[in-house]
Amino acid sequence: MFEIIITPRISETDLVGHINNTTLPVWFEAARYPIFHLFNPNQDYKDWKMIVVKTTLEYKRQIFFGKDVVIRTWVKHIGNTSLRLYEELYQGDLLCAVNEAVYVNFNLATQQSESIPPHIKKELLQHFYEEQSLQNVNDLN
Amino acid sequence: MFEIIITPRISETDLVGHINNTTLPVWFEAARYPIFHLFNPNQDYKDWKMIVVKTTLEYKRQIFFGKDVVIRTWVKHIGNTSLRLYEELYQGDLLCAVNEAVYVNFNLATQQSESIPPHIKKELLQHFYEEQSLQNVNDLN
Amino acid sequence: MFEIIITPRISETDLVGHINNTTLPVWFEAARYPIFHLFNPNQDYKDWKMIVVKTTLEYKRQIFFGKDVVIRTWVKHIGNTSLRLYEELYQGDLLCAVNEAVYVNFNLATQQSESIPPHIKKELLQHFYEEQSLQNVNDLN
Amino acid sequence: MFEIIITPRISETDLVGHINNTTLPVWFEAARYPIFHLFNPNQDYKDWKMIVVKTTLEYKRQIFFGKDVVIRTWVKHIGNTSLRLYEELYQGDLLCAVNEAVYVNFNLATQQSESIPPHIKKELLQHFYEEQSLQNVNDLN
Repeated sequence: MFEIIITPRISETDLVGHINNTTLPVWFEAARYPIFHLFNPNQDYKDWKMIVVKTTLEYKRQIFFGKDVVIRTWVKHIGNTSLRLYEELYQGDLLCAVNEAVYVNFNLATQQSESIPPHIKKELLQHFYEEQSLQNVNDLN
Repeated sequence: MFEIIITPRISETDLVGHINNTTLPVWFEAARYPIFHLFNPNQDYKDWKMIVVKTTLEYKRQIFFGKDVVIRTWVKHIGNTSLRLYEELYQGDLLCAVNEAVYVNFNLATQQSESIPPHIKKELLQHFYEEQSLQNVNDLN
Repeated sequence: MFEIIITPRISETDLVGHINNTTLPVWFEAARYPIFHLFNPNQDYKDWKMIVVKTTLEYKRQIFFGKDVVIRTWVKHIGNTSLRLYEELYQGDLLCAVNEAVYVNFNLATQQSESIPPHIKKELLQHFYEEQSLQNVNDLN
Repeated sequence: MFEIIITPRISETDLVGHINNTTLPVWFEAARYPIFHLFNPNQDYKDWKMIVVKTTLEYKRQIFFGKDVVIRTWVKHIGNTSLRLYEELYQGDLLCAVNEAVYVNFNLATQQSESIPPHIKKELLQHFYEEQSLQNVNDLN
């Protein structure tokens, strides 16, 4: 699991008085920084790899200015060229939003998707969603 | 169908050289302006009604700075308190993204969802997605 | 003078109930699109030219969601490598903000500023701020 | 002095390959959080106080994705109803931007500016820019 803490900004609120819904995709993308880094370890961003193809975002509770937010990111599926992430956003103890994001490992120069390299798959597996369940099972023993 | 034209901004691009994926939810929300206006015709936004509960966004093609974008919005389902929108984003002739957004008619004061008023339902029906298909059929006759 | 119309977005408001102050630099930059186009007419943005070096922004009145905004942009000074713009933002009849932006014609490859080409200077002169005053004087005759 | 660390987001970059200039006002505002908190300690944001009236922002160096940014904020002048802040943005050892922001203590209900309360002035004085110089002098002794 990857985890980051985000301090909401005034500019991320809206006239309804809460965090605007369009802020959440920005935060979820920010939380994927360590995954982007896996695909571009040398920080050569002209060779950017991870292109989003689908997001499914459920807004469960309003989020407010004045209190930090935690985002946790797991890997839910690794395909040959694609990757499905599962993300949870908490403010305090409250689960406020759940997101799934499908990415493809894309070569911008050739405009073709490419296999995810084995060493990256191996690293991603350490953040697999099922691991959490297993861990919970282990906690019971 | 509701339709708006958006001119991409430099600040909406990213280092990959295209429009950043987090810009699309902003544009799709901007395209819903006439629907928000239906629910808040007197522009009293302290009494804001439409709260998003889920979005499903498919990114089909990269979008670039330098060429206008068209967003078309249809109503796909009207429930008692909720509303499902279907949205298409074109740049030139290319369909670049498809979004579904589920909204609920929410009373922020009571923190309860409320039935969508009949006069709004009637107006929304004029923008129903099926109508387009029917219209296409009629065009054939 | 360059002029564009902008429809405020919900995501550009904040919890105070008005347009957030950080939205204005975004809008002013959007209004400079025709000037950027002068420097990059072939839309090859890897060769981007105009780099901002200073902005001075006065917020005169609150701006609200629900009503279009007009931004007018003039050229106030053309140096050898730099350019000073003067920008006014209106909502209805009200002048809500005034901005000055200093840009330099920068070569990102060499990391050096370059002289503004004569054909661009000539074009920019047609949008000079003093012209307006002269035009006003002419209107009196 | 107030200090915060910001991790740049992909969505804050632009097609030139660096952080877009419109991102900086967002970051500088985020850095003023503790000052906003002084004026709204009970987090009742319907009673928001601090309204920006002018910003003067100098862009000294390009800022890039992939490395944290530090923003330091000082109080430079306290008037009866207004406040002038001085802000520096560093990436690594490099000073990348300097901003001044003038705020007024504004009552949105009455639409009038109000005197800054003495207990807030006292607190703000602890973050005065001159103090830094004095401290430097003291360090020499």
